[in-house]
Amino acid sequence: MTIDDRLTALGLTLPGPFPPHDPLDAVVVHAGRARTSGQLPRDHNGVLVNPGLLGDDLTVEEGAEAARWCALNALSVLRGELGGFDRIERVLTVLGFVACRARFAEQPAVVDGASRLLADVFGAAGRHSRSAIGVAALPRGGAVEIEVEVALRS
Amino acid sequence: MTIDDRLTALGLTLPGPFPPHDPLDAVVVHAGRARTSGQLPRDHNGVLVNPGLLGDDLTVEEGAEAARWCALNALSVLRGELGGFDRIERVLTVLGFVACRARFAEQPAVVDGASRLLADVFGAAGRHSRSAIGVAALPRGGAVEIEVEVALRS
Amino acid sequence: MTIDDRLTALGLTLPGPFPPHDPLDAVVVHAGRARTSGQLPRDHNGVLVNPGLLGDDLTVEEGAEAARWCALNALSVLRGELGGFDRIERVLTVLGFVACRARFAEQPAVVDGASRLLADVFGAAGRHSRSAIGVAALPRGGAVEIEVEVALRS
Repeated sequence: MTIDDRLTALGLTLPGPFPPHDPLDAVVVHAGRARTSGQLPRDHNGVLVNPGLLGDDLTVEEGAEAARWCALNALSVLRGELGGFDRIERVLTVLGFVACRARFAEQPAVVDGASRLLADVFGAAGRHSRSAIGVAALPRGGAVEIEVEVALRS
Repeated sequence: MTIDDRLTALGLTLPGPFPPHDPLDAVVVHAGRARTSGQLPRDHNGVLVNPGLLGDDLTVEEGAEAARWCALNALSVLRGELGGFDRIERVLTVLGFVACRARFAEQPAVVDGASRLLADVFGAAGRHSRSAIGVAALPRGGAVEIEVEVALRS
Repeated sequence: MTIDDRLTALGLTLPGPFPPHDPLDAVVVHAGRARTSGQLPRDHNGVLVNPGLLGDDLTVEEGAEAARWCALNALSVLRGELGGFDRIERVLTVLGFVACRARFAEQPAVVDGASRLLADVFGAAGRHSRSAIGVAALPRGGAVEIEVEVALRS
């Protein structure tokens, strides 16, 4: 079963890819790794899903849904840059930033929205190291931003 | 003198390792590098050392003590994943996040608690590049979270 | 045209390099990559350019100017460590942190001050992946901190 088949089986269609402005690349490939730029939770129309601050405007579930869209956007830019998913050997790491108030403590449950999506799509190859960090604010008022690094087959 | 000998000489015993929840890995090894997931300052019972916000609840010294425990947890998960310290050639980099109020400016002195521990344990091989960042909040109310990347012998 | 020629043509002279305190390295080189420690916006005298918080003390333009100085400091420590720019094949990635208030949403326009400088200096080889993150506070009250990773020629 290919990753594209798995996406279909999960009922997922990827948004975008939404390219960043110059001089940024959505994905950089070097020495057997591909790393995405930070991905916001854009839907199929490019509109942010669940913008706002955790601990203020949004529930943990709404934050996790935003994180899930970040991961879908990461998959989209990786597929765009790599011409498909065949070259991806495994996910390596996720850096997850959650816009939140001081004292908000559930960043892991929010970023899990992205981590679970990657595991659903890649299976065992979707496991990864991760940091989940609560930050003051994110671009355009997004609730979550994630960066994904994957290993490529040699 | 091995790293285990050095830990003993320094009077250090490592907490954990405390494994993360699925689908996360505490450490990912790829192409000669090992990178940890973000480590919180857990003590031997898994309880957070000095939770809270710098510039509000905690002194710089208390923050540095939390950072030191983050580094001990990073060593613990690396030892667990690598089956010991023999494969570690050197520390490469530390990404250090400090939960703090706006205007708090002493993130370096806080994260130094982790950097000094790594230098004490690894000697010259413990030198590293680093960013120290002040963030709104961290998982479980932790004061510090650090990610460590090390180079492995080929 | 060498990178040094390009700097001259652009009227740029690099500040520093300002070395970090022990046990930190300004740059770590490993396996074909060089990664800087987080760079603050220091001027030629080592004084921070435009300290403060975006969304409070500083305009976006002032923040972008600070980011530009971060990039100049990154170039300076890379040149210092690598003995010049000849070994740099391309820029890979920029991790950009902006000290800001909650609800501030223009981190990309701030970090663009660094990204544009890298593109001006390296041309097509200056393109990179990037995350732009709004954080509570940065060392010494700096408005921006960036980390840069570059690929080296083999």
